[in-house]
Amino acid sequence: MGNNYTYINGQLILENEAKLLVTDLAVQRGYGIFDFLKTVNGKPIFIEDYFNRFYNSASEMNLEIGLDRTELYKAISLLLEKNNILNSSLKIILTGGYSEDGYQIAKPNLIIVQGSFEYDKSSFNKGLNLLSHNYQRQLPTVKTIDYLQAIRLQPLLKLKRADDLLYHNNGEVRECPRANIFMVKGNEVFTPNTAILRGITRGKILNINIEGISIKEQDFVLDNLANADEAFISSSTKNILPVLSLDGKPIGDGNPGKITTALSEKLLEMINNY
Amino acid sequence: MGNNYTYINGQLILENEAKLLVTDLAVQRGYGIFDFLKTVNGKPIFIEDYFNRFYNSASEMNLEIGLDRTELYKAISLLLEKNNILNSSLKIILTGGYSEDGYQIAKPNLIIVQGSFEYDKSSFNKGLNLLSHNYQRQLPTVKTIDYLQAIRLQPLLKLKRADDLLYHNNGEVRECPRANIFMVKGNEVFTPNTAILRGITRGKILNINIEGISIKEQDFVLDNLANADEAFISSSTKNILPVLSLDGKPIGDGNPGKITTALSEKLLEMINNY
Repeated sequence: MGNNYTYINGQLILENEAKLLVTDLAVQRGYGIFDFLKTVNGKPIFIEDYFNRFYNSASEMNLEIGLDRTELYKAISLLLEKNNILNSSLKIILTGGYSEDGYQIAKPNLIIVQGSFEYDKSSFNKGLNLLSHNYQRQLPTVKTIDYLQAIRLQPLLKLKRADDLLYHNNGEVRECPRANIFMVKGNEVFTPNTAILRGITRGKILNINIEGISIKEQDFVLDNLANADEAFISSSTKNILPVLSLDGKPIGDGNPGKITTALSEKLLEMINNY
Repeated sequence: MGNNYTYINGQLILENEAKLLVTDLAVQRGYGIFDFLKTVNGKPIFIEDYFNRFYNSASEMNLEIGLDRTELYKAISLLLEKNNILNSSLKIILTGGYSEDGYQIAKPNLIIVQGSFEYDKSSFNKGLNLLSHNYQRQLPTVKTIDYLQAIRLQPLLKLKRADDLLYHNNGEVRECPRANIFMVKGNEVFTPNTAILRGITRGKILNINIEGISIKEQDFVLDNLANADEAFISSSTKNILPVLSLDGKPIGDGNPGKITTALSEKLLEMINNY
């Protein structure tokens, strides 16, 4: 990660000195939200969509950001200028603040962390193997900092030689911990619509036009996914990545699919043209 | 809270200078566990029970405490000596540590915070009004720092003039965010047994002997509680507090009950004799 500058409440501080008091509600009660986007050639991609979600998450959790959108954009710009990293990830965190009693929300702490990040095109061909796990995220539409399950289950992933989890609610497919899921059947592409985080990249994919291909929000179950022709995940950093297997069994022929590849190219185009 | 000393990873630091880097997994991913006990006349009450739960929580979340029980006890003793507060609360927090990628568990940070705390006997007569809320805690038997729902719903409590939430899973009574629940029907006392945190005070109450009264772990639904003769909560700081109403309707005659009062006296005796 290197030692870039981090923004904390209006100040730029070297990352290895960027600290919060232990009285912060994130430490005391896991209380916080965040959002995560990338810059390409110095441009924060789809930033207005991330702002929409971030401001909504804050409001859902009764947290005051303290900056309007123009001021938040300015804070990010100052950080980008200071660090001067063209291709990067930006994480904007808002915590419950320094709570006197460790329970009531205080004045939130706003933190923006920038890291170097280069999209690795070769990851597309490697694809992903997913492990299903029965779990419904709480407050699924809000981007909270709650990743207890995903991090706790990292050793299980290693044991099962899987790359990531796929959450389902008693068989109804939901999402991966940090990505949305899509499946392809014939010329139709489906992504779940219930009790999930609405990914920004997911939204962009839903708007892609390719003749003869329909893309829609529609729930499906694990069995549908296991019998799909193709599957892929979407995320802000990974863009589109093919899912090659589920619980050890190949999806389709176990290789990146045609429609997945076509959508991936369209998405990369949108990002480059932003 | 005053400015007491706080223990962080072997050091005693004034609370208003006790800090963690923002790369800690508690800030990044809400990843951490804790436990919470009190000292009375300088003695950490039932500490061996709290240690049992704390070490179990750490193990369930793949976190290394880095100290064995003797060493942890010594760390607490040093803090108690330094602060010299006889009646206090002790919060032991263990976080996911300074993660390089903000996702993998690193060397955990161990924090012990002491605050002044006097048990207020008059709170017993005031009792509590509870507001039911449909919510099943994730990883319920582990004392994680996840209090997203409880803190998010504080404004609702104010609106409904309730003192605390009572979680139920589609009608099956579970627990309060920071306390266990009991109900009394005739000479029988019940406390839920499924998908809850096993409170230390709850365990002590289950072991109280009063002639003619049976106390058992047995699940019940909201309707049972609404029609109970008496109800109360148990917690490490609140000991036993009568529940006087649920969702605005009185339980029993709406006053602290006879059996609740008898159990409360027995519990206070156990604490004073520890």
